[in-house]
Amino acid sequence: MKLYCFGQSGNSYKAALTLALADIEWEPIFVDFFNGEARTPEFRKINVMGEVPVLIDGDRTFTQSGVMQYHIARLTGKFDGKTQEEKYEVLRWVLWDNHKMSSQAGATRFIMNFLPEAKRPAEAIAFMQGRVKAALTTLDMALEGRDWLVGDSITLADISCCGYLFYPEPFGFERKDYPNIDAWLDRIAAQPGWKHPYDLMPTKEVVV
Amino acid sequence: MKLYCFGQSGNSYKAALTLALADIEWEPIFVDFFNGEARTPEFRKINVMGEVPVLIDGDRTFTQSGVMQYHIARLTGKFDGKTQEEKYEVLRWVLWDNHKMSSQAGATRFIMNFLPEAKRPAEAIAFMQGRVKAALTTLDMALEGRDWLVGDSITLADISCCGYLFYPEPFGFERKDYPNIDAWLDRIAAQPGWKHPYDLMPTKEVVV
Repeated sequence: MKLYCFGQSGNSYKAALTLALADIEWEPIFVDFFNGEARTPEFRKINVMGEVPVLIDGDRTFTQSGVMQYHIARLTGKFDGKTQEEKYEVLRWVLWDNHKMSSQAGATRFIMNFLPEAKRPAEAIAFMQGRVKAALTTLDMALEGRDWLVGDSITLADISCCGYLFYPEPFGFERKDYPNIDAWLDRIAAQPGWKHPYDLMPTKEVVV
Repeated sequence: MKLYCFGQSGNSYKAALTLALADIEWEPIFVDFFNGEARTPEFRKINVMGEVPVLIDGDRTFTQSGVMQYHIARLTGKFDGKTQEEKYEVLRWVLWDNHKMSSQAGATRFIMNFLPEAKRPAEAIAFMQGRVKAALTTLDMALEGRDWLVGDSITLADISCCGYLFYPEPFGFERKDYPNIDAWLDRIAAQPGWKHPYDLMPTKEVVV
């Protein structure tokens, strides 16, 4: 499989990490997102949504990291829950992550780190950080007394929700403030095949 | 089935509209969201995410509107695509909607309409409107030359993406600016069982 991706993209990381943990052979194709490559007409032909990542599996093209995760789960029988109830729970957290966690963490990290300093909107950052904090609080509460979000092993729920949480750039998340998330990230990082996003995907330094 | 919901909630509407179009009997239970009911410890016992809607089907409780949509699809065999490729496409748009469309439209509409005027963050509104516009542009492009987002009939993809688009409150969306979306909303509204969100769910006027 081939994954169009770049190191700073937490959404790419969700797909790349699912491939890595499933022990599937794949090859990254670097997308120069910060120079606008994802919004070009050429790239829109690959993905009308104008977004990275894109996964190619033979003659099939997948966009949206959650679809890639479900495709890998379908191929391997791993990571999407063992019972119907677990499957609903996994989907619940994948949706919540897309709705509340990664979407907002990703946007906040972007405007705080990858925009030129003079263009960083202070009020919007404060607003977004409030939303990120609410999401982190929910995640920390959900992990109280649990090793994994669903069932007794790692699933797409965990691999989705951690998408932006290993990155070093500031966006309003300090691991020490969320002890359940902190311990859970250690558990994820201890899984066979785990790699940090900057070790798993090609990266070009962003000069702002 | 019982659906904890309130009229202004586009996420509730996605679940309510799926129930209505599937012709399933259901009963709404009003949640006084604007007076903080969803964030109370009592409500967190129903949904740790502190969010509306919540769907009760016998002894099962579902949260995240997308999970409810998939539960209804599973029960009825409707709306989630006819082939494996269509199923991937439906999931793709449901995820995209949660990630880019309804999440941002909902937040933007909230801060522009349901916060006291003095508390409406102008810069955050401008930032969010830019993101809403990008999402609407993608949706309009995807609907070019098509009646439905996936396949040849309405699916969860359409029912998810339209979640906030029938509401009258301003958030940066004028139907006339997006002709493909405009025509598609008319097609959705012509489906048997369709109702406007304020006719489908109980509503208490918000005094700001």
